[in-house]
Amino acid sequence: MSLYGAVEAGGTKFLCAVGTGPDHLEAILRIPTTTPDETLARVIAFFRPFAGALKAIGIGSFGPLDLDPTSPTFGTIPTTPKPGWSGTNLLWPFQEAFGIPIGLTTDVQAAALGEGRWGAAQGLHTFVYLTVGTGIGGGAIVHGRMLHGVWHPEMGHIRIPHDWERDPFPGVCPFHGDCLEGLASGPAMAARWGQPPEALPPDHPAWELEAEYLALGLVNILCILTPQRILLGGGVAQHPGLLPRVRERMRALLNRYLPAPALEGDLETYVMPPALGERAGLLGALALAMEMAS
Amino acid sequence: MSLYGAVEAGGTKFLCAVGTGPDHLEAILRIPTTTPDETLARVIAFFRPFAGALKAIGIGSFGPLDLDPTSPTFGTIPTTPKPGWSGTNLLWPFQEAFGIPIGLTTDVQAAALGEGRWGAAQGLHTFVYLTVGTGIGGGAIVHGRMLHGVWHPEMGHIRIPHDWERDPFPGVCPFHGDCLEGLASGPAMAARWGQPPEALPPDHPAWELEAEYLALGLVNILCILTPQRILLGGGVAQHPGLLPRVRERMRALLNRYLPAPALEGDLETYVMPPALGERAGLLGALALAMEMAS
Ligand SMILES: Nc1ncnc2c1ncn2[C@@H]1O[C@H](COP(=O)(O)OP(=O)(O)O)[C@@H](O)[C@H]1O
Ligand SMILES: Nc1ncnc2c1ncn2[C@@H]1O[C@H](COP(=O)(O)OP(=O)(O)O)[C@@H](O)[C@H]1O
Ligand SMILES: [Zn+2]
Ligand SMILES: [Zn+2]
Repeated sequence: MSLYGAVEAGGTKFLCAVGTGPDHLEAILRIPTTTPDETLARVIAFFRPFAGALKAIGIGSFGPLDLDPTSPTFGTIPTTPKPGWSGTNLLWPFQEAFGIPIGLTTDVQAAALGEGRWGAAQGLHTFVYLTVGTGIGGGAIVHGRMLHGVWHPEMGHIRIPHDWERDPFPGVCPFHGDCLEGLASGPAMAARWGQPPEALPPDHPAWELEAEYLALGLVNILCILTPQRILLGGGVAQHPGLLPRVRERMRALLNRYLPAPALEGDLETYVMPPALGERAGLLGALALAMEMAS
Repeated sequence: MSLYGAVEAGGTKFLCAVGTGPDHLEAILRIPTTTPDETLARVIAFFRPFAGALKAIGIGSFGPLDLDPTSPTFGTIPTTPKPGWSGTNLLWPFQEAFGIPIGLTTDVQAAALGEGRWGAAQGLHTFVYLTVGTGIGGGAIVHGRMLHGVWHPEMGHIRIPHDWERDPFPGVCPFHGDCLEGLASGPAMAARWGQPPEALPPDHPAWELEAEYLALGLVNILCILTPQRILLGGGVAQHPGLLPRVRERMRALLNRYLPAPALEGDLETYVMPPALGERAGLLGALALAMEMAS
């Protein structure tokens, strides 16, 4: 019986599982993120009993990640605010322990892969999964393949219009200040309004501003990458009523250009929530393992 | 002897040629753009004598274009300010006349194809050709294929920061006002400064502002599409000294994030001029024909 391994590597916790698909995901283990050695050793110990049946392991990890196979630091997290994790190689420990194909990508690319195989992007060849949470990140599948050019996508760091009179908030991005993430991530909302976004009532002006910034981001993603659909996930996107507002603002900003038929209506099927919920990352890692094995 | 046909369809002129590559491009004919019937008839008449040897014809055209093979208006220019051309189907006349594969894409996608096969993007799998002229448009090759998702790229219509105090100019885009094209195309510069860009001296403040807008655009293209290289072409980009300023502003805006090694230096090989000059569109169309035939 072939089994595949999946790891969702997060800044606060790792999720590990083995299985063959959404309906056959067994033994999900949650491991708190401590030091690289300790955490990775526990993940390896989790997979040990399944070693004989494991065909491949897929890892969806927080980034940034060096995913260039020709790079001397291929497979590492080059820099991260997460203490102790800069320079960690996520591939070697698993390659040494199991000698099977190990796939690595960002958490959002993995989530996109999972949504394409089992979720809200089935049947599509070019789409984006954008997460709006502690950070803003985008995963992209283009003509069926995870996008990777000079680096993996970093859609949270795009620059969008910022009306300083309407919003004097300088932005929280340590590199750019008021890039998209700097203006519209969960922490950015909390810093601007003095309370976490989930505490802001639906009629609070925060949500109109958030919809504006996210709509500007989606317009840029559309005009540059031309996804057939954009999935808007992450904690902030859970806020009831945010998605319809984003669609509305996006329609107004496009003002009927691009003239693509799929963009004419109310964008109900263009901007959509993910279908796999919190399991998107784990199932995406599983999908990556299955791709590596085939 | 196999021959391939190439058509560069522009708003003011069509260029037609037959050949097998940059060194074998024969009988280049320039046809002024008048009515669709008249113009396309003259292009077909140009290819008639070569019909026996023609394997395929590639067309790089001004847009927007419906390039979705499943669309009832596949192959047409849906809307254009160019009088009489809205709704014109660019594929049928050639399919009926010659019964050989006919490839169609935008002029900038064609230029990208040509630069990848014979120009400044040889050996790369993921890159962008951005033209800054009468309009701003981007062509993208991703993992070796022309990018086409819900539509073809429309990179000129991305939204970027606009400091109204520094630049009270509202922008010339008929749909969006101050999108990238609305702020930084040739006509935008002419409208803002009261003279065509080629008449503005090198030390004119116009060029610092132009470099800022283009750099913001390139940062967004980088973060979303992750090209290995961006080729900056078109009339405005011919201005001596503009490219180095764009690189400089882009470096400052990135502020060392993304941490990709290829982006560490002075971006000399990241943002580059095209190598094929004015022939990029025609050679791109030829490359498209050769792809269609294989
Ligand atoms: N229901 C909610 N509504 C609005 N914001 C939320 C909600 N749930 C979580 N958040 C915000 O989302 C962020 C956490 O994002 P999440 O996607 O859950 O985790 P992470 O991005 O760390 O993987 C926090 O800033 C939190 O305040
Ligand atoms: N050398 C130059 N320096 C600056 N701007 C130029 C130069 N040559 C042409 N332009 C501007 O570029 C635009 C024409 O762009 P071009 O790429 O030549 O044609 P098109 O975009 O119509 O194919 C015009 O707005 C023109 O003013
Ligand atoms: Zn940033
Ligand atoms: Zn526009």
